[in-house]
Amino acid sequence: MAKVVTLGEIMLRLSTEVGTRLSQTAQFAAHYGGGEANVAISLANYGHEVAFATKLPDNSLGEAVLRHLRGAQVQTDYILKGGARLGTYYLETGVGERAAKVIYDRAGSSFATVSDNEWADLDLFADVDIFHISGITAALSEDWQALTVTLMRQAKAAGCRISFDVNYRGNLWSQAAAGRALETILPEVDYCSAGEMDALYLLGIPAYQGDGNGLVYYYQAIQERFPNIQVLYATKRQVHSASHNVLTGTLWLGGNYFESKAHDIDPIVDRVGGGDAFSAGVLHGLLAGHDGQAIIEFATAASALKHTVSGDDNQFSLAEVSAFVTSGSGKIVR
Amino acid sequence: MAKVVTLGEIMLRLSTEVGTRLSQTAQFAAHYGGGEANVAISLANYGHEVAFATKLPDNSLGEAVLRHLRGAQVQTDYILKGGARLGTYYLETGVGERAAKVIYDRAGSSFATVSDNEWADLDLFADVDIFHISGITAALSEDWQALTVTLMRQAKAAGCRISFDVNYRGNLWSQAAAGRALETILPEVDYCSAGEMDALYLLGIPAYQGDGNGLVYYYQAIQERFPNIQVLYATKRQVHSASHNVLTGTLWLGGNYFESKAHDIDPIVDRVGGGDAFSAGVLHGLLAGHDGQAIIEFATAASALKHTVSGDDNQFSLAEVSAFVTSGSGKIVR
Amino acid sequence: MAKVVTLGEIMLRLSTEVGTRLSQTAQFAAHYGGGEANVAISLANYGHEVAFATKLPDNSLGEAVLRHLRGAQVQTDYILKGGARLGTYYLETGVGERAAKVIYDRAGSSFATVSDNEWADLDLFADVDIFHISGITAALSEDWQALTVTLMRQAKAAGCRISFDVNYRGNLWSQAAAGRALETILPEVDYCSAGEMDALYLLGIPAYQGDGNGLVYYYQAIQERFPNIQVLYATKRQVHSASHNVLTGTLWLGGNYFESKAHDIDPIVDRVGGGDAFSAGVLHGLLAGHDGQAIIEFATAASALKHTVSGDDNQFSLAEVSAFVTSGSGKIVR
Amino acid sequence: MAKVVTLGEIMLRLSTEVGTRLSQTAQFAAHYGGGEANVAISLANYGHEVAFATKLPDNSLGEAVLRHLRGAQVQTDYILKGGARLGTYYLETGVGERAAKVIYDRAGSSFATVSDNEWADLDLFADVDIFHISGITAALSEDWQALTVTLMRQAKAAGCRISFDVNYRGNLWSQAAAGRALETILPEVDYCSAGEMDALYLLGIPAYQGDGNGLVYYYQAIQERFPNIQVLYATKRQVHSASHNVLTGTLWLGGNYFESKAHDIDPIVDRVGGGDAFSAGVLHGLLAGHDGQAIIEFATAASALKHTVSGDDNQFSLAEVSAFVTSGSGKIVR
Amino acid sequence: MAKVVTLGEIMLRLSTEVGTRLSQTAQFAAHYGGGEANVAISLANYGHEVAFATKLPDNSLGEAVLRHLRGAQVQTDYILKGGARLGTYYLETGVGERAAKVIYDRAGSSFATVSDNEWADLDLFADVDIFHISGITAALSEDWQALTVTLMRQAKAAGCRISFDVNYRGNLWSQAAAGRALETILPEVDYCSAGEMDALYLLGIPAYQGDGNGLVYYYQAIQERFPNIQVLYATKRQVHSASHNVLTGTLWLGGNYFESKAHDIDPIVDRVGGGDAFSAGVLHGLLAGHDGQAIIEFATAASALKHTVSGDDNQFSLAEVSAFVTSGSGKIVR
Amino acid sequence: MAKVVTLGEIMLRLSTEVGTRLSQTAQFAAHYGGGEANVAISLANYGHEVAFATKLPDNSLGEAVLRHLRGAQVQTDYILKGGARLGTYYLETGVGERAAKVIYDRAGSSFATVSDNEWADLDLFADVDIFHISGITAALSEDWQALTVTLMRQAKAAGCRISFDVNYRGNLWSQAAAGRALETILPEVDYCSAGEMDALYLLGIPAYQGDGNGLVYYYQAIQERFPNIQVLYATKRQVHSASHNVLTGTLWLGGNYFESKAHDIDPIVDRVGGGDAFSAGVLHGLLAGHDGQAIIEFATAASALKHTVSGDDNQFSLAEVSAFVTSGSGKIVR
Repeated sequence: MAKVVTLGEIMLRLSTEVGTRLSQTAQFAAHYGGGEANVAISLANYGHEVAFATKLPDNSLGEAVLRHLRGAQVQTDYILKGGARLGTYYLETGVGERAAKVIYDRAGSSFATVSDNEWADLDLFADVDIFHISGITAALSEDWQALTVTLMRQAKAAGCRISFDVNYRGNLWSQAAAGRALETILPEVDYCSAGEMDALYLLGIPAYQGDGNGLVYYYQAIQERFPNIQVLYATKRQVHSASHNVLTGTLWLGGNYFESKAHDIDPIVDRVGGGDAFSAGVLHGLLAGHDGQAIIEFATAASALKHTVSGDDNQFSLAEVSAFVTSGSGKIVR
Repeated sequence: MAKVVTLGEIMLRLSTEVGTRLSQTAQFAAHYGGGEANVAISLANYGHEVAFATKLPDNSLGEAVLRHLRGAQVQTDYILKGGARLGTYYLETGVGERAAKVIYDRAGSSFATVSDNEWADLDLFADVDIFHISGITAALSEDWQALTVTLMRQAKAAGCRISFDVNYRGNLWSQAAAGRALETILPEVDYCSAGEMDALYLLGIPAYQGDGNGLVYYYQAIQERFPNIQVLYATKRQVHSASHNVLTGTLWLGGNYFESKAHDIDPIVDRVGGGDAFSAGVLHGLLAGHDGQAIIEFATAASALKHTVSGDDNQFSLAEVSAFVTSGSGKIVR
Repeated sequence: MAKVVTLGEIMLRLSTEVGTRLSQTAQFAAHYGGGEANVAISLANYGHEVAFATKLPDNSLGEAVLRHLRGAQVQTDYILKGGARLGTYYLETGVGERAAKVIYDRAGSSFATVSDNEWADLDLFADVDIFHISGITAALSEDWQALTVTLMRQAKAAGCRISFDVNYRGNLWSQAAAGRALETILPEVDYCSAGEMDALYLLGIPAYQGDGNGLVYYYQAIQERFPNIQVLYATKRQVHSASHNVLTGTLWLGGNYFESKAHDIDPIVDRVGGGDAFSAGVLHGLLAGHDGQAIIEFATAASALKHTVSGDDNQFSLAEVSAFVTSGSGKIVR
Repeated sequence: MAKVVTLGEIMLRLSTEVGTRLSQTAQFAAHYGGGEANVAISLANYGHEVAFATKLPDNSLGEAVLRHLRGAQVQTDYILKGGARLGTYYLETGVGERAAKVIYDRAGSSFATVSDNEWADLDLFADVDIFHISGITAALSEDWQALTVTLMRQAKAAGCRISFDVNYRGNLWSQAAAGRALETILPEVDYCSAGEMDALYLLGIPAYQGDGNGLVYYYQAIQERFPNIQVLYATKRQVHSASHNVLTGTLWLGGNYFESKAHDIDPIVDRVGGGDAFSAGVLHGLLAGHDGQAIIEFATAASALKHTVSGDDNQFSLAEVSAFVTSGSGKIVR
Repeated sequence: MAKVVTLGEIMLRLSTEVGTRLSQTAQFAAHYGGGEANVAISLANYGHEVAFATKLPDNSLGEAVLRHLRGAQVQTDYILKGGARLGTYYLETGVGERAAKVIYDRAGSSFATVSDNEWADLDLFADVDIFHISGITAALSEDWQALTVTLMRQAKAAGCRISFDVNYRGNLWSQAAAGRALETILPEVDYCSAGEMDALYLLGIPAYQGDGNGLVYYYQAIQERFPNIQVLYATKRQVHSASHNVLTGTLWLGGNYFESKAHDIDPIVDRVGGGDAFSAGVLHGLLAGHDGQAIIEFATAASALKHTVSGDDNQFSLAEVSAFVTSGSGKIVR
Repeated sequence: MAKVVTLGEIMLRLSTEVGTRLSQTAQFAAHYGGGEANVAISLANYGHEVAFATKLPDNSLGEAVLRHLRGAQVQTDYILKGGARLGTYYLETGVGERAAKVIYDRAGSSFATVSDNEWADLDLFADVDIFHISGITAALSEDWQALTVTLMRQAKAAGCRISFDVNYRGNLWSQAAAGRALETILPEVDYCSAGEMDALYLLGIPAYQGDGNGLVYYYQAIQERFPNIQVLYATKRQVHSASHNVLTGTLWLGGNYFESKAHDIDPIVDRVGGGDAFSAGVLHGLLAGHDGQAIIEFATAASALKHTVSGDDNQFSLAEVSAFVTSGSGKIVR
């Protein structure tokens, strides 16, 4: 199948049991994840040859990350060792009306403090079909903002298509700063995960005034501004509670709008990584050359499945997601 | 109260925590169960004198099964020791839209490899009111298919009523094979758990064409074919998701159709054994001489309660199920 | 902020995991709680200076209670040591249609066997704004019934406002006995948690016959009987199941009726202490001088949040509850 | 094999994990046990027909006790229902130099508050070989002290041999009170578990002055005083730490002294019930007619094995204990 | 009793289960601790009035620290809020021949980045008997090295005695740097925890050449250099393995050398905080005016007990440690 | 470094917690392991390029095995999919005097039922330095006995050195059958793990009569019989208890005998895989060209470390084992 490289930060998530607060817990579950790493694992699960590039501290936690990635058959040849620490964050799991709560402790991580292209000597993009990176990476530092563009250009020069997930995080940068960065990043992008909020608040596209589907308007507006972007996609998430969401996938492809069936996710086991599972599903559909409706049904199904398992990564094979698209019933087969 | 013998296989179930996949789990919960064993435990809970007959390997797992049954006051005098192994299966617990997943590892078990009536020297049916057995047992081997009929006839000769749960399992035999077996089994049966799917696909009864209650039609058709069957019953399960089902019990008794109130089961803690709890509830009602409506309300309530506890067996007493039939509110009494 | 004293029993709760019955469990979670203690913790969380008075056995379990209270910054200077034992109870956690089940084992506890005012030498009420106590305390013994009134009068003499939560427990005393006790208690009360059931069955107020809001009628009727009561409040709880309740707070203040938005609590993590969180919310609002609507929204939000955490106490700060009142979306902020 | 009845209290033990204190724990492991119940389970494991008589509260904890006993194949026909509560105790597990710590909460239990022979209408001792009871039972109340003797006499009249374990507990009665009680109890006893401490402090036998084996002197002195006692036995326990004991069994039988090999128990998993496993081992040897050395080796091995499993009861079969007597190596067989 | 202030960093420890490596674990136990905080908790357990001063991030982890300290009755009035993060470290628990392994992730913590005396406006030392601080604090930064001396001088000016634990950490600074710092710190110190290694490698005292007790020589040499130091103490630890140590306490007081009995600690449950428990034991003895032998027996017993519980803090009361000094047998009392 | 292929069965181990018996457990820990797989993981940890060949069922358990191996960087290209099931076994963890207990449930596994060389089309041995296989594989069936020799010859023809671990399992074949098989296998072997028991009972070498080191005699005798064997090695294990062993490694290399220091392993966390860790250590030493003493110290240290971690595989890197050889103190470095 295809060859993909993703590059970004991977962090240790320390999370509480449902019903236990961060200030009261006596233990944490440990998971490793990050947007680009999660996309890598999903695509490896679908049979693609995927490498994840990052920088890890040379200690047991770095070792744990390698074990996590290798267990999922993601190539780790482009993972550098060094720097001070692994980024971490604490997650107080939400439930019902009570939202999850996050404490980030990611400053000064091995990856975030990279300032030059430390992968320059590695042949990162040879024969690679897609290079995927996200706005979280760009948000880490001024250096990373520049490096993101540098890497995209190198990838494009090597013949890769560029996939970018805007993934705006308010705790990492302001909307204004993100908007400015996107002006330099988006011109390099082929496939882009971005939605109404990104259009409105980061790209400054005027609010939709009509009655119809606003997303068509926003997708068109983004594409008008960045005609290089061939594909746009985003999920619509109806948040009934922290335990119950309804998820619908949307896709703009070839000038057409596609929307998946709505997935009623109740209860949510773990929503971290749900967006990455969706992105990976879209990328897989594009690589496999599926039509728009098939792509968006697959990607949304993959994301819905992710919500049913603990951990950031989507632990489902191509066959499993495909079967879920057609059945998805919740019935035991025996 | 009454005296009951059930006979069948009991297996070790190894299941994952909600949100953890079989391929990723580092531990399994252990439960012991099987259709006829689960029925035995329920009936013992209701105060009946119940013996469960099976064959177990002579090792610690066999010992664990005995402990499980004895703890529930099921008599174990008819349990043979020997053979190679205890049948096992792995259950990936389903949640929300994601269905449970089962890997069977039951071939070659001590029970499945029984070929003769090894209970012949034991006075299995003396003074017994009901002998209960299921289609899972018949499905284990050609020998077991024949043995099922042999045991039923012996039981009938000893004055037992014969209770049979069709319990079709597609992974054990084909619909055609099951249908052929039922032709020799059903003529021996007094009380039978069978529903629309069994009528259509195993017994080849033509599909109902009318607007009304198809089940009445199917129950009548089965009874026409096997006039010896006095009672038929089945649940209707509306599967919203693996975590949310609505369950209604139906009963055909004395030429009349009875239907329970619908139980909204949300969330489901563990649905394995839900059907067995229902069967045991019906058998109890019949033994107690209750009327049709009382029988089906009790049985469906018992099954609904089963869905709220971990483990295959229904851990509720006669008093508890009866109280639940009348209240069932979910309120704390204090 | 204000200074509050609450006085009552605190018990050890031994509870099972969801899906496990008391008769089958091999382990118990341990939590410490009691109506007045829970109110104390909530008010301390909101920044008030709160002391909890009780009597504890001089052993490790008494020590554990102190640790629990001190960790929440509740003052423990008025906690006496002595007596035979800590009251305990066993909770079989309910789920879905199956209600929780409680076994009380509280007789003969250090607190329940207090017969005189053992706090007489302590200056319990100096500079205290509110003294809070509940009907559970009065229900413990004839001595405690009398002591409740004695303490209220001392508090009033010292200038405290008196807060009382009826908190009727059918396993501690009859409706008739409770009703008689209330006739001597309520004349001392300023703020009272009492609802329709209390009005009907304890106070013997005739049932509302109109079409409108019965609560207004009941609140008025109670106030007519006990004109000293300035504030009345209660929750209305729509019990869909043990896992799903809809909760609305109601308040009678200054002759006006206030009602909160309805909170859809699904799933319920732990409802023990939900009423105490509500009472504490109302008391905080009164102490802070908020208007009726603000008080009832805050109190009901606090109670709803309590249902999302394990343990009897409400582990949320003033800032957290306030934020939840305005957002409450269940969305992750990151 | 033989038929045995034991009678006594069975309690719920709530214990902490190694390294966690009672005042800090957030969970407890639940085990059910009591001297006479533990002896019953051991003897049932060895193939004897054993009934345990007690009185339990009619609630889920009583149900749990029944499940525990029945799972071990102990007959529960003589178990009465009623009374206020199940006796409980809290155990802070010891480790290394730190001793275990116990908080008893057993007062007022269903069993302890029995005042008459509530088993009078049951044919408790028909065809029974041994009736076993302990000094813990006699220590519960004046009534129980008298009842102990009454029951022993009834049993003797019915042809039982009487087995008694002194089992002195300083928190239940004084040495003086126990000594007085023993004067009325021991004249009824055939087999008695008693050691040097009992001889010195309860029976007032003068301290041994010689150089040789003091136990022979004490056993002789006890037998001189109570010539009806045919067998005396006790363990010698060298306590290196809470995690490491060396255990030796001693037996006085037919005027001869027998001593087992020393068992080096390191680490101790759970020593509660170690003495009961020893008593049951001796009783089994007597019932099986083994010689003195065989009896004491078996009994001490059984006790040593008990120290390696969690829970009060000895979970080893006759074959397992016998194999351990001869091998006991700690090697895996595979 | 006395009044004590300790000041230092408190960190979150994330540790693995015995037998699980950091690179493989899926969960961490969470404990909060730090040298000065641990001393504070011990002294509060002994009945002293103790305040711990530190700086914590204003988030849930800071909240958890407060709860930990308050639960142990340590005053938190001098705890500042602010800064970036809570220092953390990962502990791979050692066992047998395999040593524990630590990954520090403490750089940039709220406490470590303090540069001025942020406690200047608080009346930290009023009526305080002892101010305790350690070399870990001085090692955090050049600023902290200076601040340590500043705080000591302020405390001394306010009439406090100064207690200092050298606590050399090779990962925080070099021996040379530590040695230079000690030259400015030790002249302020009254009570000092320091041993042979500190004398040799930090203070450059020539190695002992005699046959007798080298410690007497080293203690004398330190005192000669810093005649202001009235008391010196250290433990001697014989490390058989990570699970088995023999611990002896030593004390230099009034020109005399005292040594405790040796404690055989096997198995070790958790040795983190063992030294702090020792220091607190010595300080308690000094405050209580005990003689040298009593002080060192108490302190070493306290440290030995600490090794038997999970968590950094010593969870034993004055009565418990005192009882352990005299008995310490590992026997259950019941 | 070097290139290694190992081939054999990998099984699911289901084990109990310390102190819990198989017949009583409610949960199992899941580990995956097998002699040749464990050797593969160790060698991959040491930096070698290692492939493990086996056959797995095409289900989630097979998937779990792949994840386990890939996480450890073992190549899985030679792993076939198919067959009926994954071999499993149940382990009751031993402790102190009580030995571990194993129930095998491995018959009919995907690997054991291989009858032909299903790897024939794969270029298994190209550029491979060592092919490692064990006597467990040969013991699985007559077919596997023949296949073992076939594979060894192919490997040898391709230029591999042949490593063989006798690993006699009495539950798989008789000593006589194993002895006959060894006559055809050993002539192909270069490096052989075999000890005194193998020499005596499988190879029929007469017992050593002298006073000196019997192993030298046995190693010489084996080598005389099979002069192709260049290296022989085995551990001597002094079994104090299931929790405490003393382990010494021995090596016969170049006609010289080497013996490691003795490792005192107390407590043992998990001894499964200890022998495989030792074999892998020897193979690494041979590949690295170390001298005899260095080889045996490294290998024995690796095995000792394995006993300190849960799981069959040795989770230590080259650097970690090397550091342990030189220090091994059990001290925390911080």
